[in-house]
Amino acid sequence: MTPAEIRAAALQHAVALASERRLTVATGESLTAGLVAASLADVPGASAVLRGGVVSYHRDLKVSLLGVDPELLRSVGAVDVQVAEQMARGARKSCNADIGIATTGVAGPEPHEGKDVGTVVVAVSGTDDCLVREYRFAGTRAQIREASCDAAVKLLTEVLQRRPVGTNRDPQ
Amino acid sequence: MTPAEIRAAALQHAVALASERRLTVATGESLTAGLVAASLADVPGASAVLRGGVVSYHRDLKVSLLGVDPELLRSVGAVDVQVAEQMARGARKSCNADIGIATTGVAGPEPHEGKDVGTVVVAVSGTDDCLVREYRFAGTRAQIREASCDAAVKLLTEVLQRRPVGTNRDPQ
Repeated sequence: MTPAEIRAAALQHAVALASERRLTVATGESLTAGLVAASLADVPGASAVLRGGVVSYHRDLKVSLLGVDPELLRSVGAVDVQVAEQMARGARKSCNADIGIATTGVAGPEPHEGKDVGTVVVAVSGTDDCLVREYRFAGTRAQIREASCDAAVKLLTEVLQRRPVGTNRDPQ
Repeated sequence: MTPAEIRAAALQHAVALASERRLTVATGESLTAGLVAASLADVPGASAVLRGGVVSYHRDLKVSLLGVDPELLRSVGAVDVQVAEQMARGARKSCNADIGIATTGVAGPEPHEGKDVGTVVVAVSGTDDCLVREYRFAGTRAQIREASCDAAVKLLTEVLQRRPVGTNRDPQ
């Protein structure tokens, strides 16, 4: 399989898992800037799963559109575990989805807020749980953004696999 | 030049035009689902231009996140010139950007709300003007979404070229 085929298979798997569980998904993306949502939408049938998302490329949009605590952002910067958690929760809420996926990190070419190029945090938030993971990716700007997108899809898959088929949160 | 190189050059040109004019950009994306924002973010230096965006994949998010008139949506459906205009204006406002770019259309594989697969509307909204264009694209789901993204970047470029360098809207 080519890297593109592996990526397509991973996306199809994630969409199928969510679809079987009748769970909807929303994104809150910083360095990937829409790549996660667009990749999920590549899969035919994605509309049963993908509600939508927010591209919070500039940090003030993390506050205004995703509800991240501005004090937290000021004290720890945008590339942080807690910020990613809040972004994922905000994506879930603003799009009225079951699961929120967030990415924040430094794609380069320059370091940002004291964080090295390739530092990335991904969070996946359900109603009662949140998985967060930090990564150090190497490569070009495009490679770091693609690796972040792949990591987000992988973390989403992990979260979905933990949930039995047919179980859903209570309707809002 | 390969198609990928042509696309990259078009994106670099659009970002350079916006950057020279000190204009910021936001997206409101339906069928492209983040592809326009992610493509602009591919360009190094995009952070001076791209503020962020909204992926309004499901129609209720066009109302809640982009401020599209729900009565209009009900009467004309999501793939419509007026809806695209309102999405572009909503993207501009919600992200506090100078220019909003919107895409709405039918990527397939099935027709949607009586509109054929490949029917796409793109809008680019400034403070006082809005350019809207309707397209009929042929091809696969992925090809239609890519063609829509390319059309959005082209329309953005047209809007930017109409504005003299150094002219900006009044600050909000």
